[in-house]
Amino acid sequence: MTHQALIEELKTLVDSGKLLTDTDSLASHGIDWTKHFTPAPMAIAFPRSVEQVQAIVRWANECNVALVPSGGRTGLSAAAVAANGEVVVSFDYMNRILEFNEMDRTVVCEPGVVTEQLQQFAQEQGLYYPVDFASAGSSQIGGNIGTNAGGIKVIRYGMTRDWVAGLKVVTGKGELLELNKDLIKNATGYDLRQLFIGAEGTLGFVVEATMRLTRAPKNLTAMVLGAPDFDSIMPVLHAFQKELDLTAFEFFSDKAMAKVLARGDVPAPFDTECPFYALLEFEAASEEVMDQALAVFERCMEEGWVLDGVMSQSEQQLENLWKLREYISETIAHWTPYKNDVSVTVGKVPAFLRDIDEIVTKNYPDFEVVWFGHIGDGNLHLNILKPETMDKDEFFAKCATVNQWVFETVQKYNGSISAEHGVGMTKRDYLYYSRSAEEIAVMKAVKAVFDPNGIMNPGKIFAV
Amino acid sequence: MTHQALIEELKTLVDSGKLLTDTDSLASHGIDWTKHFTPAPMAIAFPRSVEQVQAIVRWANECNVALVPSGGRTGLSAAAVAANGEVVVSFDYMNRILEFNEMDRTVVCEPGVVTEQLQQFAQEQGLYYPVDFASAGSSQIGGNIGTNAGGIKVIRYGMTRDWVAGLKVVTGKGELLELNKDLIKNATGYDLRQLFIGAEGTLGFVVEATMRLTRAPKNLTAMVLGAPDFDSIMPVLHAFQKELDLTAFEFFSDKAMAKVLARGDVPAPFDTECPFYALLEFEAASEEVMDQALAVFERCMEEGWVLDGVMSQSEQQLENLWKLREYISETIAHWTPYKNDVSVTVGKVPAFLRDIDEIVTKNYPDFEVVWFGHIGDGNLHLNILKPETMDKDEFFAKCATVNQWVFETVQKYNGSISAEHGVGMTKRDYLYYSRSAEEIAVMKAVKAVFDPNGIMNPGKIFAV
Repeated sequence: MTHQALIEELKTLVDSGKLLTDTDSLASHGIDWTKHFTPAPMAIAFPRSVEQVQAIVRWANECNVALVPSGGRTGLSAAAVAANGEVVVSFDYMNRILEFNEMDRTVVCEPGVVTEQLQQFAQEQGLYYPVDFASAGSSQIGGNIGTNAGGIKVIRYGMTRDWVAGLKVVTGKGELLELNKDLIKNATGYDLRQLFIGAEGTLGFVVEATMRLTRAPKNLTAMVLGAPDFDSIMPVLHAFQKELDLTAFEFFSDKAMAKVLARGDVPAPFDTECPFYALLEFEAASEEVMDQALAVFERCMEEGWVLDGVMSQSEQQLENLWKLREYISETIAHWTPYKNDVSVTVGKVPAFLRDIDEIVTKNYPDFEVVWFGHIGDGNLHLNILKPETMDKDEFFAKCATVNQWVFETVQKYNGSISAEHGVGMTKRDYLYYSRSAEEIAVMKAVKAVFDPNGIMNPGKIFAV
Repeated sequence: MTHQALIEELKTLVDSGKLLTDTDSLASHGIDWTKHFTPAPMAIAFPRSVEQVQAIVRWANECNVALVPSGGRTGLSAAAVAANGEVVVSFDYMNRILEFNEMDRTVVCEPGVVTEQLQQFAQEQGLYYPVDFASAGSSQIGGNIGTNAGGIKVIRYGMTRDWVAGLKVVTGKGELLELNKDLIKNATGYDLRQLFIGAEGTLGFVVEATMRLTRAPKNLTAMVLGAPDFDSIMPVLHAFQKELDLTAFEFFSDKAMAKVLARGDVPAPFDTECPFYALLEFEAASEEVMDQALAVFERCMEEGWVLDGVMSQSEQQLENLWKLREYISETIAHWTPYKNDVSVTVGKVPAFLRDIDEIVTKNYPDFEVVWFGHIGDGNLHLNILKPETMDKDEFFAKCATVNQWVFETVQKYNGSISAEHGVGMTKRDYLYYSRSAEEIAVMKAVKAVFDPNGIMNPGKIFAV
């Protein structure tokens, strides 16, 4: 079939005007936040119903056309990039909240519902959707599920996986499966729902998701603490976790802090300069909890783990303390940073961080290394800033070597080469650092069960 | 190969004396708490290491012998029954706690670690393993994972699934897979760990599990409330959940209460007789929480949802209130009850319960129906007592008809035919009431990936 004939057929499967092939649409919808790939999709389809999604998948099987799912396109691993003539299936018009079940505290969402839209909906019901991260204003629920999105509240609330009560999916064969039926307890064989969470659209499309909500937190209170060295951060985490249910435990280095303060729009938390900082948050639901938190803080000071600290006394102060952490990414973007998102178990974090730091500093003494991350989850974001004088190409070439060291160190510590950004295309060639050959073979065989013709997001997670 | 030759070969794969073929062992290790099957295994193997497990699986593939995993044998769906000449692989001697990671709050367990052993170990570390249920004194971690055990604290702490940080499994091919490496965040493709949780040993054996622990709860406090009708129970749940993080929300009917009180060893919670009772529990970490709980209680009284109630003021009172719920199963065992364990979403519970009640009462007016269950999770345990005068065979024949009605009603309400007891052999022929034909086909294909020769617990979940 000719390219034009394919397009004409595809047009009949969606609403009028919901198949786009203009250059701008192909460019904008063929890519995510990774910028190393050149988008080259065949067309962008915007289904409005489950039936239309099924029709597209059946058509793709018949015509042997690859499909790429597209949500908010905020991904950082190129899982939603269409660079090889694929049809992009965008869920921008399947973006309704369909149902709210008060007694179950669940919300039935179409996949195109934006994270923030769900968060706000929850708030209107006096409830809370706790998965939160920088791109919540544009990322979509379908994409969050595809990558098992994490973010800043994982230490208390877990990943997206923990909030998916049920899924409707269209498999690579075009079959509609209703997985788990929104039940809390359901011991009827394999929980196939779990396979689709984090599958990056390689098994099928999520076409409906029932998400759980929870009680809204009361009087969230943050502390920023300065530590004399990285090793002190971990006992601080441990001491607080013993007494409180932390809702966040983030860390960042003095370099990150300095760059954010240099913007001039966020006040310093205190005067003492420290090499590392922790930001922790908890529900100060009562005076007693507040007293407990202060007691732990004092103990950390006495032990020498903390040099200085501050606790938010108002909503405004809470926001300002969070800005110290939240503004980091945006602030360092100016230095064209090499970024990597990795994880190890929490206990291994100090040794892992020291190893990477040493390797980079020894080999590239002119590189500035900026660490921050969700340390309570063992999740580190490594950022290396391009020296102002260095050429971009030279910098990226050197970073390829850094990549190798990082992944080797991850393997040494039995960690993950992608903590929360997925594999997509950017990390698929390094997958074996985190998953064994046997596991990868099993994953490919599982994919073949759901997608025998290999039309679902091919080239993502594994090479074709 | 002759039967004797098989046994001789198998003997060489385990430690001396760790293969049993005597009649008593075959009888005791070939069965679980379901008593409808006649155990008939070929032998019972007790491996002591991962390597021995792998050797047994490879041997079973070569000799085409079926294997049945065996833990505490407390299952209620015959998933661990060996009735067809299988080799039972018992994990009784792989029962060590191998490692404790303080910073990660994880415990590396061999599969034969008993649930209570892990609970006690956690307590010794000042921590808490929150999955708890009646058979915790004998059930093993490997079995808990195989059935995704739930129990009485699910409303706050989730299922066994939520506490598995990592798994080492031996697949049906004999391959050793290390799944998830105990990480909190790990976005590197399909989370195969999840498939093994709840797989009832049909994909492979769990040979090591890293379990998470959490902060120990503070000052657990229970309330027992009496309600004028079942419909009032749900707004009570809703009202309390809005203000408090409940650690349990159980319910039982007046018939259950009457039978437990008739034992004479548990005091009545209060004098008012009510058709339904709720038992709820929460952490009374501060005076404020206690006041909140009392305020909600008063509101429930004013609304007429609650007729009377009591709150525990001591550890002893807490225990006594729990006995009202915990003694039910044991107490009604005297009446040879027909039992079923089903679930629907929480909002559908009242209508579901009413439907079943009506059908049974209409058709078998002489049957006494006793309801209890984890109502906060939508999980109902239906028990029908055998009339004293009715013959056992007649009763069981009538119960087969009841089964049909129950499953049809479950399907009508889009629920689960097995909430937390698994499928095994007792429910496999009814699986289609909860899972579609397409889903079942997918599950079988997934099984074939891990267990191509079908040697892993055949006949469980699906017929062979």
